[in-house]
Amino acid sequence: MNSQEILDDIVAAIRPQLGKAGAVANYIPALARVNPCQFGIALRTRDGVEAWAGDAMTPFSIQSISKVFSLTMAMRLAGERLWERIGREPSGNPFNSLMQLESEQGIPRNPFINAGAIAVADCLVTCGDDPKSEMLALISSLCDEPVHIDEEVAASEAATGFRNVALANFIKSFGKLDNDVCTVLDVYFRQCAIPMNCLQLARAVNFLCRDGSHPFSGVQVISARQARRINALMLTCGTYDAAGEFAFLIGLPCKSGVGGGIVAIVPDTLSLCVWSPALDASHNSLLGQKALEMFTSRTGLSIF
Amino acid sequence: MNSQEILDDIVAAIRPQLGKAGAVANYIPALARVNPCQFGIALRTRDGVEAWAGDAMTPFSIQSISKVFSLTMAMRLAGERLWERIGREPSGNPFNSLMQLESEQGIPRNPFINAGAIAVADCLVTCGDDPKSEMLALISSLCDEPVHIDEEVAASEAATGFRNVALANFIKSFGKLDNDVCTVLDVYFRQCAIPMNCLQLARAVNFLCRDGSHPFSGVQVISARQARRINALMLTCGTYDAAGEFAFLIGLPCKSGVGGGIVAIVPDTLSLCVWSPALDASHNSLLGQKALEMFTSRTGLSIF
Amino acid sequence: MNSQEILDDIVAAIRPQLGKAGAVANYIPALARVNPCQFGIALRTRDGVEAWAGDAMTPFSIQSISKVFSLTMAMRLAGERLWERIGREPSGNPFNSLMQLESEQGIPRNPFINAGAIAVADCLVTCGDDPKSEMLALISSLCDEPVHIDEEVAASEAATGFRNVALANFIKSFGKLDNDVCTVLDVYFRQCAIPMNCLQLARAVNFLCRDGSHPFSGVQVISARQARRINALMLTCGTYDAAGEFAFLIGLPCKSGVGGGIVAIVPDTLSLCVWSPALDASHNSLLGQKALEMFTSRTGLSIF
Amino acid sequence: MNSQEILDDIVAAIRPQLGKAGAVANYIPALARVNPCQFGIALRTRDGVEAWAGDAMTPFSIQSISKVFSLTMAMRLAGERLWERIGREPSGNPFNSLMQLESEQGIPRNPFINAGAIAVADCLVTCGDDPKSEMLALISSLCDEPVHIDEEVAASEAATGFRNVALANFIKSFGKLDNDVCTVLDVYFRQCAIPMNCLQLARAVNFLCRDGSHPFSGVQVISARQARRINALMLTCGTYDAAGEFAFLIGLPCKSGVGGGIVAIVPDTLSLCVWSPALDASHNSLLGQKALEMFTSRTGLSIF
Repeated sequence: MNSQEILDDIVAAIRPQLGKAGAVANYIPALARVNPCQFGIALRTRDGVEAWAGDAMTPFSIQSISKVFSLTMAMRLAGERLWERIGREPSGNPFNSLMQLESEQGIPRNPFINAGAIAVADCLVTCGDDPKSEMLALISSLCDEPVHIDEEVAASEAATGFRNVALANFIKSFGKLDNDVCTVLDVYFRQCAIPMNCLQLARAVNFLCRDGSHPFSGVQVISARQARRINALMLTCGTYDAAGEFAFLIGLPCKSGVGGGIVAIVPDTLSLCVWSPALDASHNSLLGQKALEMFTSRTGLSIF
Repeated sequence: MNSQEILDDIVAAIRPQLGKAGAVANYIPALARVNPCQFGIALRTRDGVEAWAGDAMTPFSIQSISKVFSLTMAMRLAGERLWERIGREPSGNPFNSLMQLESEQGIPRNPFINAGAIAVADCLVTCGDDPKSEMLALISSLCDEPVHIDEEVAASEAATGFRNVALANFIKSFGKLDNDVCTVLDVYFRQCAIPMNCLQLARAVNFLCRDGSHPFSGVQVISARQARRINALMLTCGTYDAAGEFAFLIGLPCKSGVGGGIVAIVPDTLSLCVWSPALDASHNSLLGQKALEMFTSRTGLSIF
Repeated sequence: MNSQEILDDIVAAIRPQLGKAGAVANYIPALARVNPCQFGIALRTRDGVEAWAGDAMTPFSIQSISKVFSLTMAMRLAGERLWERIGREPSGNPFNSLMQLESEQGIPRNPFINAGAIAVADCLVTCGDDPKSEMLALISSLCDEPVHIDEEVAASEAATGFRNVALANFIKSFGKLDNDVCTVLDVYFRQCAIPMNCLQLARAVNFLCRDGSHPFSGVQVISARQARRINALMLTCGTYDAAGEFAFLIGLPCKSGVGGGIVAIVPDTLSLCVWSPALDASHNSLLGQKALEMFTSRTGLSIF
Repeated sequence: MNSQEILDDIVAAIRPQLGKAGAVANYIPALARVNPCQFGIALRTRDGVEAWAGDAMTPFSIQSISKVFSLTMAMRLAGERLWERIGREPSGNPFNSLMQLESEQGIPRNPFINAGAIAVADCLVTCGDDPKSEMLALISSLCDEPVHIDEEVAASEAATGFRNVALANFIKSFGKLDNDVCTVLDVYFRQCAIPMNCLQLARAVNFLCRDGSHPFSGVQVISARQARRINALMLTCGTYDAAGEFAFLIGLPCKSGVGGGIVAIVPDTLSLCVWSPALDASHNSLLGQKALEMFTSRTGLSIF
């Protein structure tokens, strides 16, 4: 059975379940009004073969999936110094908890919790020239199509993101944020507000299944070692406080966002993106997870 | 031995210890440059007899002692509704901890920790017309002298108060702050930045040993029941995470500030203010505590 | 109105509320089968005048009220050394929480939480000859009547007290328990299992309103300073995680037990015991609290 | 370069570093007196090719590596029911923390922290006939040689394991332990006290790189799906609070023990055991980790 048939099968199996469980993120209007009865899936192999099915061409807000791209940029710009301000351990707590940040003196546990992504954004402001443009340029290059920031979503995030403002100020109070809080948060809120579709995202993370080399140009985006490390972080920390469950049931490095997207990597083989807006209690796409579970059980492509 | 003699004795006993231990608060320049070798003490009895000694006429930044006045105003304006947003239990944690705030869903433990005072300030913005002017008017009336805000201190507090900004945004993220974060914090930062001397503060809290009646006019500032409740809160929560130690060693309701001042109440009898800028590890005035311990052991005026 | 009339009034006001709210402790059969519709109250003044009303002569399990007597014994035997192993701050957490014990390396916050009382029991085993007999002798002397241990209750406590076994082993794991865990817990479980009535308890804590002197012999049980310190601890830590609420509403040093008893001290004036088995969510007697609130509002005897 | 050459190279590279950093576990005499200057490594491929080098034939106490075998037994006996009492998420806290256990009501985060392994032992007591004999039989079969319990080590563990006694009683207090605490702990302490060498352990976990089939008989020990899930748990939770670091640097499912051993799985390919007694701050073998890092960087066998 080829890739396209597998994806078609998954869409056929998921479609009857749409709209039956879970709930779309409702903390900003632009996310709350998304139709929950959508599902898309796309993949791109290491060698550039692509397949997609369902609503794979419908753009959605990438939200926390952007943390993969900001981490990639920061590892490229700052190298090992990045890890002086950010840990690499699972957090064992809901994704926006301040407790651990307090007991660990302003060092976020890992770059995929909100606090950690704010610390990454601070690094981008310090080391980059124009982080927002550079991130759009990186993603556009990786998916071979221009991407943009949805300013309505970015403004809503900024207007309601009190907990992220709290996190940034809290890190700052420990002396662990070098730049102005507003500047850092502006980078952070905007990176979350990029609309992309499944195929674009499958392409944009494809370098992680190619030892770090660009899917179209073949140039190293990051080193092979760095790519493997991002995969490791995605597996242990990429899906909020359900990383253990994802490893247990799906067995692939994944990064999810509250827009309902999840990207997944089969190292050396392919990259994958699923999307369905209704979330479970852990803020991960409910049917996105089921689709990934089907995919790994049908293909046997778990890393374990 | 009369009051004046007791205060003179205490000054004589404390003076040789000045400058030997503790450290002044150093998070803002205006506090960091205060000469630590100062000590003042003043009291006013229920009947209006006053005594003072040492540097009792030197103004210092009242800082968290202002929380007594903001609480008084909020109890007057909001009555029992105030307690829907603020608890009345000791916090059992350092004064600016976010942990408990997280586990208790944005309800601060009590009005004397920073989070609680921010919630009180939110109540003042909601219920008052011009909280900053009203607070200055209340304090000026209580101590029978005009008091003002030190704008340099207020600006420094605002520029470096990242943890308080974090607290306010965190409370807001739980939907437990009704007003704009900046407006609330402006009230909060300014109330801390009032310079007063020991005699002014002994007068300004005198209503708490008079069943709530104004020390000069005799009008009820708050009810007798409310005054007793503020005293109870001062005893259990008024001295950061050393409230148990204060009750154990001093045995009086107290409220301290990082400017080095401590006010204390002997119910039905007198109010007292001590000041010495060097703080101990709990952020309470080191020699202020010793002076209060001497005072209660010499006079036998502990409430226990 | 004299003491007896006040107590009679309180009984008349409380009786119609019996059985309407709260629940008896149900973790051991001997407590679970107590009739909730009982209420007793008794007091003894500093000068030895006694009054009682309602079910003041019905014995009940003193449970945590025993912590007052074990602390008294330990302060007598070990003096200041006691405080090397136990703090004096409110815990800010439910009474049997292990969290704070972990973050504070096996030093319980205060002697009135279970962990603290276990550390007190350890001190009694170290410093005493036969702690169980000595405690019975002390209490019997203080209330002028022989008291005994209810072996059924003690056995039930031991058989179901897994959390206390956990606490003791946890303290031991930090090297902060000198004696064998079982020996220490035997003292702890037995001290809780003493049946006494309201009048006996009002007598037994009467030394705390007499500067530490024995209510019958006048001999110092502990020093005046130590007595005041126990009162301070009762006020800040004596009623589980409702100490702030008790101070706020009642304004007296109190110690409660899950048997439904509460002792209260009006310093220099009188000691008091109320009892009603139905507890509120904080494990304090629901109607016992109401009775104490009536008592202080009618007599004006709050310490604040 | 073949397996044997790689292992020889690693031994040559590690040997000069022996005794220079880290410290052997010292909480029981039998572990404290182990010579830190030892290092062994062994592997067995999916197809049964074996290689070893250094002190690979010297037995050491397997300690927490035993949690892999007890989990395997429990998954076999209880199936999915096991997960009603144990989570599958990383703990984000030191390996013996009680905090999370308290906030999660007696449900340990995962089967590889001590609390979780105690819950697994409880399941073995419930579902098995003679858990200790059955575990010895399982391990002996898997490594094709008889293994035994070191009774001195087991007795020392039992005599000093106060924190584990605390954990078991704490879980019991939430009603989440079905059997007698002592019976459960006896199973737990004994399973840790098995001496094995590197080759024996590489064989004993070989079924995890063979889709669950026995390395010698080929019979399914557990299902392929269960084997992958154990690998996933080892990756996310197998190395105390350094699981993220192991994934980041080594990229293989691992389980470590305070005896200095670490087993690692390359799915579908081989199983591996390294041993060196000196531990780092996270209680993982310091040189064991370095050896694994060398192994994956030389062979490119990371799962990422």
